[in-house]
Amino acid sequence: MNKVKAIDSLAISTQLVLPNDTNVLGNLMGGKLLHWMDISSAIAAQRFSRRVVVTAAVNNVAFNQPIKLGDVVTLTSKVSRAFRTSMEVFIEVTVEDHRTREIVKCNEAIYTFVAVDQHGHPIEVPELVPESEEEVKRFDGALRRRELGLILAGKMKPGEATELKALFV
Amino acid sequence: MNKVKAIDSLAISTQLVLPNDTNVLGNLMGGKLLHWMDISSAIAAQRFSRRVVVTAAVNNVAFNQPIKLGDVVTLTSKVSRAFRTSMEVFIEVTVEDHRTREIVKCNEAIYTFVAVDQHGHPIEVPELVPESEEEVKRFDGALRRRELGLILAGKMKPGEATELKALFV
Amino acid sequence: MNKVKAIDSLAISTQLVLPNDTNVLGNLMGGKLLHWMDISSAIAAQRFSRRVVVTAAVNNVAFNQPIKLGDVVTLTSKVSRAFRTSMEVFIEVTVEDHRTREIVKCNEAIYTFVAVDQHGHPIEVPELVPESEEEVKRFDGALRRRELGLILAGKMKPGEATELKALFV
Amino acid sequence: MNKVKAIDSLAISTQLVLPNDTNVLGNLMGGKLLHWMDISSAIAAQRFSRRVVVTAAVNNVAFNQPIKLGDVVTLTSKVSRAFRTSMEVFIEVTVEDHRTREIVKCNEAIYTFVAVDQHGHPIEVPELVPESEEEVKRFDGALRRRELGLILAGKMKPGEATELKALFV
Amino acid sequence: MNKVKAIDSLAISTQLVLPNDTNVLGNLMGGKLLHWMDISSAIAAQRFSRRVVVTAAVNNVAFNQPIKLGDVVTLTSKVSRAFRTSMEVFIEVTVEDHRTREIVKCNEAIYTFVAVDQHGHPIEVPELVPESEEEVKRFDGALRRRELGLILAGKMKPGEATELKALFV
Amino acid sequence: MNKVKAIDSLAISTQLVLPNDTNVLGNLMGGKLLHWMDISSAIAAQRFSRRVVVTAAVNNVAFNQPIKLGDVVTLTSKVSRAFRTSMEVFIEVTVEDHRTREIVKCNEAIYTFVAVDQHGHPIEVPELVPESEEEVKRFDGALRRRELGLILAGKMKPGEATELKALFV
Repeated sequence: MNKVKAIDSLAISTQLVLPNDTNVLGNLMGGKLLHWMDISSAIAAQRFSRRVVVTAAVNNVAFNQPIKLGDVVTLTSKVSRAFRTSMEVFIEVTVEDHRTREIVKCNEAIYTFVAVDQHGHPIEVPELVPESEEEVKRFDGALRRRELGLILAGKMKPGEATELKALFV
Repeated sequence: MNKVKAIDSLAISTQLVLPNDTNVLGNLMGGKLLHWMDISSAIAAQRFSRRVVVTAAVNNVAFNQPIKLGDVVTLTSKVSRAFRTSMEVFIEVTVEDHRTREIVKCNEAIYTFVAVDQHGHPIEVPELVPESEEEVKRFDGALRRRELGLILAGKMKPGEATELKALFV
Repeated sequence: MNKVKAIDSLAISTQLVLPNDTNVLGNLMGGKLLHWMDISSAIAAQRFSRRVVVTAAVNNVAFNQPIKLGDVVTLTSKVSRAFRTSMEVFIEVTVEDHRTREIVKCNEAIYTFVAVDQHGHPIEVPELVPESEEEVKRFDGALRRRELGLILAGKMKPGEATELKALFV
Repeated sequence: MNKVKAIDSLAISTQLVLPNDTNVLGNLMGGKLLHWMDISSAIAAQRFSRRVVVTAAVNNVAFNQPIKLGDVVTLTSKVSRAFRTSMEVFIEVTVEDHRTREIVKCNEAIYTFVAVDQHGHPIEVPELVPESEEEVKRFDGALRRRELGLILAGKMKPGEATELKALFV
Repeated sequence: MNKVKAIDSLAISTQLVLPNDTNVLGNLMGGKLLHWMDISSAIAAQRFSRRVVVTAAVNNVAFNQPIKLGDVVTLTSKVSRAFRTSMEVFIEVTVEDHRTREIVKCNEAIYTFVAVDQHGHPIEVPELVPESEEEVKRFDGALRRRELGLILAGKMKPGEATELKALFV
Repeated sequence: MNKVKAIDSLAISTQLVLPNDTNVLGNLMGGKLLHWMDISSAIAAQRFSRRVVVTAAVNNVAFNQPIKLGDVVTLTSKVSRAFRTSMEVFIEVTVEDHRTREIVKCNEAIYTFVAVDQHGHPIEVPELVPESEEEVKRFDGALRRRELGLILAGKMKPGEATELKALFV
């Protein structure tokens, strides 16, 4: 299986928050942002694997501050690690104040995708090559997050999660 | 602050998967389901707190099996624990085959909401009273998940997470 | 043909009124509610018949009071009577004030669906068994409403509508 | 109160049935058509009354034949009678085969609107002047349909519906 | 190839500007109007050619004045000239003040469509017969606009555009 | 008035073509792409001017080749020239085949925006500083396109368009 650099999966998407994306307080609805993050990270996983991909999991997403009507939202997605048929993708969401052009990081999310063939069956993906310091750090952390996901899904016992256990002991 | 039973926050929502909800494989898009889950769990949190609520976090969500065009999807949301101004909500997603009426549990997600006043500032919510065995189990697990969220957000060190640590040691 | 209880067709759907669902007065648009009622009642008819169903008719729907932005709307649909290939479905729409949790019945609608096979041709449906007092009352009234529909569609003369005639004479 | 001709309320709307408007059989969803009819007839009522209008009721709507993906749907709406603050609107839906340009009448619906002021309170509307034979026929039938609506809403006893009673006796 | 009159391609569409169609100033978004114009003019081209049509180009569109929430927008589309497989369509957009019923022309746009067969390949269309003075004027100007489009697309040198050149010299 | 570089207005947006964006041939609808281009170029104009912007005009847009369901579409927008209160924006649309990652330029469009204050009145924008060869070329061509727009809008006579005239003589 060939190797692909993290940077080659980069997907940038810019959205303008319009009235139909907001809740009763005039802020971007969480559900809408989750939808945008799903599409943005799917593009990164598709670029990486050159396959159709389906969402397999959403890891911890925190909404740190309200995003307002009229704000410009930028979603930056990059694959952080590839397993046999699945890929972990990091999404960073920033908002830009259109008057000051100040850019504020609003949240960070992690989605997992599985590459599938035309029948919807999982298919192997390339290996990821991390380059920058941040890419290496995310690559290393991916194993722990994977164990965490398996524990939360009831597919692994906490005692077997060697990577994760090391964190607490 | 008054007390509210978990069951009083119950929100049930039934959706029919239509063409515009599907991806190129004819399956329900992850982003759409995340959006539906956000609205369904927001209603549960709103019923519980009798306040406007905003999405604060999404915990681990696993998409175990494809949901197909024409499927009837039922989302069942219930608050599992309330903290000072926030509420953890469990969402169960089931799909029903319209021919056999067989119901299959597709996934389970956990969203966190914060109750806000008219200026968008956090405001106190009632205490949750769990009753059924499952409600008690979820209530107890909420502290661990909260620690996990704080660690993932970089707001707590793993060594300080007493509830979570006990799981691994 | 087998028999199915009314209660087994029950479909409950909860929706939050968002900005894009409202008109210039900030109230839920009639057309949007009609769309939600169509999907909710189609699910009830599909559960009852275990078939794909298509909307055949909409009977009298009254919009008694405005539903406001931010309101939680609950649609409760149940098949009231089955004819050879068609089913009459009652939809009750209630709104809940999120501060007081007071629930107000907003309107009641009746939709009719036809069960179809994969070519879109009508196909037989089970017989309905009404149980509660309300279910029996609706079951009995269905014949009169059917005659009314046929008269309004020009397929029956008023003089032939024996059930309906009895009401006025 | 001034008088307005039926023809001055005419609203014509043409829509192309796109994938996101269809059900699993590839036909226009009933709920979508109900939504289009609501907007089209609201425009007619608004033209007639020169006021903001809100949907008050939907009378019998029959879906006689499936409308297919790619079809051109034309909705023709015209006020048929005005009461003190409400208006009855007839909507005719035709479909045109884009190859043969054959136009087929698919269904006919009747919606009722109430004119409101800026606070949402009912406000008087002009009197309708029917001109064509069809307009006169619809104008005359409106009283019967109004009685029918009041009976169905439980606001009138069948015995009091003098116009309607005459039909059956 | 047969001939078709301009008037036989006429497509009228009426839309009500709803909240989800507006920008942060409460005015109709340009992108939404472009979308409506695309559908309206596609119907005119489809009526003219009796074929599936695809958008080939959009010519100069000017947004002269803001269209407000609650306004009734009427789009009137008519084919102005047919070339071998393509058609030029004029779209006029008017807005009607619902209180005064005053109708104001907001803008005029020109879209070009290509008729295609079931494989998406271009296919011949009828010849257009202009009748009214305006139709003749648009028909005559179409050649100049076509040259302009070819120059802007880099497919023709300004010196070769005989029709257009005459305008400036 | 200060000066801003063209590159500082750059806005990149990536979209995945989903079923509800396509026409009956399974290709991206022109109207949807026009809508996406409007939002993408509005962000570039907003970044440049640090103001709310409204669409003023759409110049020649050519749809050179069909974009298919599942394709990843990238819109790259950059301000090409600023006039007193308006800005011309170039949008390049590329499509990427997810299997080969081959990138194909599909079309190029030019939109014009006006910066407005909170009352919707035009307000001055910074001067644009072109840097790259392409930016200079677009900057120079903007005057000609402006004259062309004024002629097409009937606000300038061809004989007065000195820049444009030079092209043909």
